[in-house]
Amino acid sequence: MEKGLILHEDPVSGNCYKIRLTAALVGMPLERREYDILKGETRTPEFLANVNANGRIPVLQIGDRFLPESDAACWYVAEGSALIPPDRFDRADMLRWMFFEQYSHEPNIATLRFWMHYLGEENLTEFQRGQVEAKWLAGKAALALMNTHLSDRDFFVGPTVTLADIALFAYTHVCEEGGCFHLADYPAVCAWIARIEALDGFLAMSA
Amino acid sequence: MEKGLILHEDPVSGNCYKIRLTAALVGMPLERREYDILKGETRTPEFLANVNANGRIPVLQIGDRFLPESDAACWYVAEGSALIPPDRFDRADMLRWMFFEQYSHEPNIATLRFWMHYLGEENLTEFQRGQVEAKWLAGKAALALMNTHLSDRDFFVGPTVTLADIALFAYTHVCEEGGCFHLADYPAVCAWIARIEALDGFLAMSA
Repeated sequence: MEKGLILHEDPVSGNCYKIRLTAALVGMPLERREYDILKGETRTPEFLANVNANGRIPVLQIGDRFLPESDAACWYVAEGSALIPPDRFDRADMLRWMFFEQYSHEPNIATLRFWMHYLGEENLTEFQRGQVEAKWLAGKAALALMNTHLSDRDFFVGPTVTLADIALFAYTHVCEEGGCFHLADYPAVCAWIARIEALDGFLAMSA
Repeated sequence: MEKGLILHEDPVSGNCYKIRLTAALVGMPLERREYDILKGETRTPEFLANVNANGRIPVLQIGDRFLPESDAACWYVAEGSALIPPDRFDRADMLRWMFFEQYSHEPNIATLRFWMHYLGEENLTEFQRGQVEAKWLAGKAALALMNTHLSDRDFFVGPTVTLADIALFAYTHVCEEGGCFHLADYPAVCAWIARIEALDGFLAMSA
């Protein structure tokens, strides 16, 4: 197993949580370095020069190399484990749901959570306020698509949990913090959340 | 090699082009089924029921299975080829740039090209118009980050071309169609574009 993995993260970020949950499920130790996004701690000259020129977390540090992008870090941690399916189609299909998460789910569901729960609606700019409804509609469409997909299966790809489930679980299970999503509207998603939370080695976001 | 791969696509889409370029570089034949996004041909009940419930192209059809998300389809096509690096860190780092492309590059650079070049500025909604400046700034930041990264290397990951280059090439090389980006501002990106276009087996977007 790898030694000395360091996760540069903000503990309230679902993107960071994905990597911690992946590491927990495969039994890999992670050292944590914490930053507060709201205080701009990922935009300092030191962070931009040494950790990620894109000014974002999470970043997984492996020795003296740095790996940004949550889903890429999950892939690194999970390689060789059952979280990446052995079948060629299933492996690509897992990536399909991870790209879906980053393109159609996270920019809506995670962003609304950040705006409403962490920034606070009263502190939004006019520009942000103007996007709330579109993000709400797109987020609901993403949840509905997930609900339909899960209506006749236990996990997103194949019969067991994969990185696709971890990537989608992170912000889905706290989506109600965005103030406008109701998980009860998506019963297959609720049943899937319960299955994830019952996994051996499961780690809660607040852990 | 796989037989009978069918690409459901719109020929002007960079996301679809990524898959055609990947297939060309690895020598895999692809049958093409064309749809016109502007005519809503990916939102018909038949398309939603049979090809992709998310109403988007590209979708790679493999036998009777359907794989949405451009970068997942590229992964499927490239598995076993030199376009996916053998080193564990490099493989994750390649995915890192593919997720960067879908999160920080495509929603800005590809969307502005679609709005300005295909829809036409005069046909934008007020909501779209209100986002143009933010997408322009974010797109410029993505191009600047690419330019810095490429300033001392030939390709995004390791010494040879990978899927990271293909994913980022697709919309970068036509970014000026968005009307507000100037490739000459990014000389390392221009040199990289020339390296991609000189690859054995390179296929132009219009081919």
